[in-house]
Amino acid sequence: LGAIESTVSQLIPHLKPETILTDVGSVKGPIVHAIAPLWPNFVGGHPMAGTAESGLNAAQRHLFVDRPYVLTPTSATPPAIASTLATLVKQLDAHLYECSPNDHDRAVAWISHLPVMVSASLIRACSQEADPHILQLAHQLASSGFRDTSRVGGGNPELGTMMAHYNRAELLHTLQLYRHQLESLTTLIEQNRWADLENVLSKTQSARTQFAST
Amino acid sequence: LGAIESTVSQLIPHLKPETILTDVGSVKGPIVHAIAPLWPNFVGGHPMAGTAESGLNAAQRHLFVDRPYVLTPTSATPPAIASTLATLVKQLDAHLYECSPNDHDRAVAWISHLPVMVSASLIRACSQEADPHILQLAHQLASSGFRDTSRVGGGNPELGTMMAHYNRAELLHTLQLYRHQLESLTTLIEQNRWADLENVLSKTQSARTQFAST
Repeated sequence: LGAIESTVSQLIPHLKPETILTDVGSVKGPIVHAIAPLWPNFVGGHPMAGTAESGLNAAQRHLFVDRPYVLTPTSATPPAIASTLATLVKQLDAHLYECSPNDHDRAVAWISHLPVMVSASLIRACSQEADPHILQLAHQLASSGFRDTSRVGGGNPELGTMMAHYNRAELLHTLQLYRHQLESLTTLIEQNRWADLENVLSKTQSARTQFAST
Repeated sequence: LGAIESTVSQLIPHLKPETILTDVGSVKGPIVHAIAPLWPNFVGGHPMAGTAESGLNAAQRHLFVDRPYVLTPTSATPPAIASTLATLVKQLDAHLYECSPNDHDRAVAWISHLPVMVSASLIRACSQEADPHILQLAHQLASSGFRDTSRVGGGNPELGTMMAHYNRAELLHTLQLYRHQLESLTTLIEQNRWADLENVLSKTQSARTQFAST
């Protein structure tokens, strides 16, 4: 994310005017805001595929098949340009979504950037356990539930930081709502309101199914 | 968890005095405290295996192989009884751990009960998104990162409630430390302290590897 604008600036002197540019950054508002004035034939893109690995050795055949690929054309984007990129994305057998850069950033704050902070906080909290015997036992007993919940918090630190930096306002908004929910669940436990807690957990169980269809 | 004590009370009139009892509840302090006075030949147990399914149809061959199995004998437990159960657990090819009921409960608060509340709060927070278009986009774009982080928060509501009920004090302790970590990460983002944030995420990346070895 931090290198996209300067890379485009260096590319521009070498491009024919009809060249179409896109990017693969995981935040779109600031990128589109910076690049569109430099190059009118630009459409922001975000293919949601890949692994924690990077570099050429991490290349994968069929990387984009059945994965979401977001394009963020704006009212200033020439329609033919957006259409050409949409065709290309479909040829990758990716699932194409088109939305505004800001809508993209708000949606990924929920499903990608907030989970990193939630998950990293879990790892940090566990590391605060003062009794080394308990901490060792926790390490030994941690199973798939803990590993799943902590996975994205143990991801690439530079990427996590860049996402927070470039999507700061939306991430802070989701963090605030998250904290309210955490406090509300904590209050139910403090007040021994077990029927209410079970009711909440029933709702989260059914709400999650809507996110888990792919 | 809620049925163990009454089940044991109903069983006792039918048992020979040398019968060894154990249980498979996911909280140990209150269970051992309730059952040990009723039946001296009792050892608390917690096999950490299984799926979200329940009932006889969910039975699995080799369910316990290479999974943690905690036994919680106390100073009041006859040593021969603990030893017999340890032998049985090893014959299942499970990984045996022995600790006090309270140490067990504190460790699983970190790696099992806290993650449920952290993850459920994530699902609840996302559901607060007021714009249905953004919420739909979030559903469409949610990938493995979100699904992993939200998985345990979408689990069995009755089990989650029972765990919170029976391990209330330890869970509240971990929730308090978790909230501090969440607030500290949020502050770094609010104050644009990106080098500090990357430093924290580097530490969570390396701390997580200690939990992920099995």
